[in-house]
Amino acid sequence: MVNERMKGLGTERSAIRELFEYGNARAKEIGREKVFDFSLGNPNVPAPQKVKEEILRLLEEVPAETLHGYTSAPGDFSVRRSVAEFLTKESGVNVPAELVYMTCGAAASLTATLHALCNEGDEFVAIAPYFPEYKVFAEGAGGTLVSARAKDDFHLDIDELDRVIGKRTKAVLLNSPNNPTGVVYGAEEWTALSALLARKSEEKGEAIYLISDEPYRELTYGAAVPYPMAFYPNTVVCYSFSKSLSLAGERIGYVAVSPRAQNAEDVFAAICGAGRSLGFVCAPALFQRVAAACLGLTSDQSVYKTNRDLLYGALTSYGFSCVEPQGAFYLFVKSPLPTAEFCKKAREKELLLVPSDSFGIEGYVRISYCVSTEMIERSLPAFEALAKEIFV
Amino acid sequence: MVNERMKGLGTERSAIRELFEYGNARAKEIGREKVFDFSLGNPNVPAPQKVKEEILRLLEEVPAETLHGYTSAPGDFSVRRSVAEFLTKESGVNVPAELVYMTCGAAASLTATLHALCNEGDEFVAIAPYFPEYKVFAEGAGGTLVSARAKDDFHLDIDELDRVIGKRTKAVLLNSPNNPTGVVYGAEEWTALSALLARKSEEKGEAIYLISDEPYRELTYGAAVPYPMAFYPNTVVCYSFSKSLSLAGERIGYVAVSPRAQNAEDVFAAICGAGRSLGFVCAPALFQRVAAACLGLTSDQSVYKTNRDLLYGALTSYGFSCVEPQGAFYLFVKSPLPTAEFCKKAREKELLLVPSDSFGIEGYVRISYCVSTEMIERSLPAFEALAKEIFV
Repeated sequence: MVNERMKGLGTERSAIRELFEYGNARAKEIGREKVFDFSLGNPNVPAPQKVKEEILRLLEEVPAETLHGYTSAPGDFSVRRSVAEFLTKESGVNVPAELVYMTCGAAASLTATLHALCNEGDEFVAIAPYFPEYKVFAEGAGGTLVSARAKDDFHLDIDELDRVIGKRTKAVLLNSPNNPTGVVYGAEEWTALSALLARKSEEKGEAIYLISDEPYRELTYGAAVPYPMAFYPNTVVCYSFSKSLSLAGERIGYVAVSPRAQNAEDVFAAICGAGRSLGFVCAPALFQRVAAACLGLTSDQSVYKTNRDLLYGALTSYGFSCVEPQGAFYLFVKSPLPTAEFCKKAREKELLLVPSDSFGIEGYVRISYCVSTEMIERSLPAFEALAKEIFV
Repeated sequence: MVNERMKGLGTERSAIRELFEYGNARAKEIGREKVFDFSLGNPNVPAPQKVKEEILRLLEEVPAETLHGYTSAPGDFSVRRSVAEFLTKESGVNVPAELVYMTCGAAASLTATLHALCNEGDEFVAIAPYFPEYKVFAEGAGGTLVSARAKDDFHLDIDELDRVIGKRTKAVLLNSPNNPTGVVYGAEEWTALSALLARKSEEKGEAIYLISDEPYRELTYGAAVPYPMAFYPNTVVCYSFSKSLSLAGERIGYVAVSPRAQNAEDVFAAICGAGRSLGFVCAPALFQRVAAACLGLTSDQSVYKTNRDLLYGALTSYGFSCVEPQGAFYLFVKSPLPTAEFCKKAREKELLLVPSDSFGIEGYVRISYCVSTEMIERSLPAFEALAKEIFV
C-alpha cells in the first residue's frame, strides 16, 4: 500500500547509517570506549568560535521575526551576494548572486540539481567508488546512475569515461576531495575531463553538465583543489558547510550554477522549481546568515591530519594496503578477504568498517577517521590483531 | 534540456511568492509605508523569549560538535520522545517516539508523507479552497490532486467528499485551522469524515489515509481544535513550528504517524525512505532541540486577533463579504468583480491581495493579516476607496 521503493530506502537505510546505529547500540552494551566506530562522516571538531559569536550577534542585533522568518526561496539576497563574491574571488569565474541558491546542505543541493536536470531516460555518470547516496538521489529524480570505474589509484580514468559517457548522459557527478578515497583531482585531470565533456556534448548535440559535489573542498592536507568551474563551462557546484564549519546537523549549503553554462538561467530556474517541488521552501534562515559571515573560515582541522598520519602509518605497517588520502577524512582500504567476511571479522574486534559494495565497487572498506585521535590509538591493537589473524 | 516541469515551477513560482517579491520591489520604488502587502503568511510577531534563551543555553551547555552535528535521520531521539509525550498528552492517542519523524518544516512533512504513500495512479483529495502547494507536492510525488469543494461556509461537505473519494484515493489531505479560509473543523465534522473514510476504505479494500496538515493548530481565536488522530485511525499528522513559534525560516516541524494506522510501521519506514530520497538527511539540529524545549508555547498571537477584528469589521462595513476566521491569519474575501480585475484594481491602490485561482476555486481573494496592525490601519482608506469604486 505504501510506496515500496521508499519503504525499502527507509528500512534498509544506508549501510553507513545502519552501522552507526549498530555502534550506538553496541556502545550501550559494552561501553562506548570499547567500540571503534569508523562508520560515519560526522565532523568531530567543534565549529569555529566565530559561528557561536555570529549566532550571539545575530540574536542581539536582528529582530527575531526577521532573523527567524522566511527568506526568499533561493535565499537571503545579501547571503547569496556574499557567496557569489567569495566564489568569484576564489575561482576566478564571475559568479553572480542571481545564480546562487542556498540549500539545506549537500544532499539538498544534489537532489535539487538532479531533479532540475533530469528528463526521462537520462543517465548520470558517477566515478566508482562513489558516495552511495548518489544512486538514491539520481533514481529519486527519475534518472539512472551509471558507474565509470576510477583508475587503481582512484584518479579519473578518462578512457573509461570516454566509453561510458554517451548520448543519454545528462551529467557527470563527482566529488573532489573524494569520499570515500581521499583523492584530490589535479588541474591536468580537470583539463582532460573538460576536453572530453566538450567533445561528448558536441556529439550529443547539447550540453552535458558537470555536477561538482564539493563538501570537502577545504579539507585537504596541502593539496590544491582546483575549481571545476574554471575548467568546464557547464558546471553546477553543490556545496555544503557541513564539513568546513562542522555544521553537518544544521543543513546549510548552496548550489552555484556557472554563468558560463549553457542555459544557465534555465538551469537555475529549474533548481528553484525542484527545491519547491521537493518541499525545501528556503534554507534555514539563521544559518544562512552565519555561513555567509564565516565564508573562507574552517574549523581547526589539524586533528584530521594527525589521524590520517597515525592510521595510514599503522595500517600499512600491519600489512593493509591503501592509497594515502590527500583530502577528506576517509581511508579506503583494500579488503584482504572477501569484503563481507573481512567486515565481520573486524566487527568481532569491535571495529566498525563500511564495506565498499554500496560505493559501487567490491573489495574495499571505508574507514572514516573524523573521530578522536585517542579512539584511533585505542583501536590500533584491534587492527593489529586483525592483521595477524589474516596475514598468517 | 532541463526538466520543463521544474523550470516551470521555478519560473512561475507560486502566485503568493511572486506577489511578495513584487511588493518588495514596489516598496523600493515608492516607500515601504505606501505598499500594503497582504500576500505572505510570514509571522510578524517575534518568537517567544524562551526560543532565544534556549539557543543561548544550548550554546553554553552542549559541545558545538554535538549541538551542530548530525542527528539520527528521523531526529534526535530525546526530541522525538518529547514530541511523542506532548502529542499523547494533548490528543489522548498514545503516540510512541518511534512514529515521530522530525522534518525541515511543514512542506518537508508533506512531501515526505506524499512520496511515502504514493504509487502510480494514486489520487490525493484536497478540500477546495486549498493551499496551492498541495498540488505541486502531490504531483511531485507522482500522484494527482483531486479537488472536493467545501460548503459555502468553507466547512466540510461530506456529500461532495462521498462523490469524490473513490478506489484511486490514497489519502485526503486537509488543513484545520484552514489556510486560506480561517475555518476550524469541529468534532462533528471529524466524526462524519471519519465514518465516511472508514466506509470508503472498506469499499476500496485498503486504508485511505488522512493527512492532517496542522501548522495553524495553536493559532485560533477561542475555537477548540480537535485532534483528527483521535477520530480516525489512519491519520498522519504533518506539523510545523513555523507559526506557533514564529520560526518559519528555520524549517522545523515533524510528521507523526498514528499508532492506530494500518501498517503504521510501514508508513513510518516509507516516510524515512522518502526523506532520504528527497535529500533531507535530518532536520536542523539546533532547532530540533529548541522546538522540543518549547512544546506547547506560542509566540504572543494577540495581535492576530486585533488584526482580524479590525480588518473583518472594516471590510464587511465597506460592503465586502467574507466568513469570519476562527483560526490562522487569513481573510478569504468574496471578489465583487472577476478576480483578476479586482486584484488589478486593488493593486492600483497598492493593496496586494492573492487571487483564489491557485487555491482551486474562483471568485475570492486571500488577505494575509499577519502584518502590523498599523499597516492595516493605514490600508483601510485604500480598501474603502476600492469599495466605493466598485459598489456604486
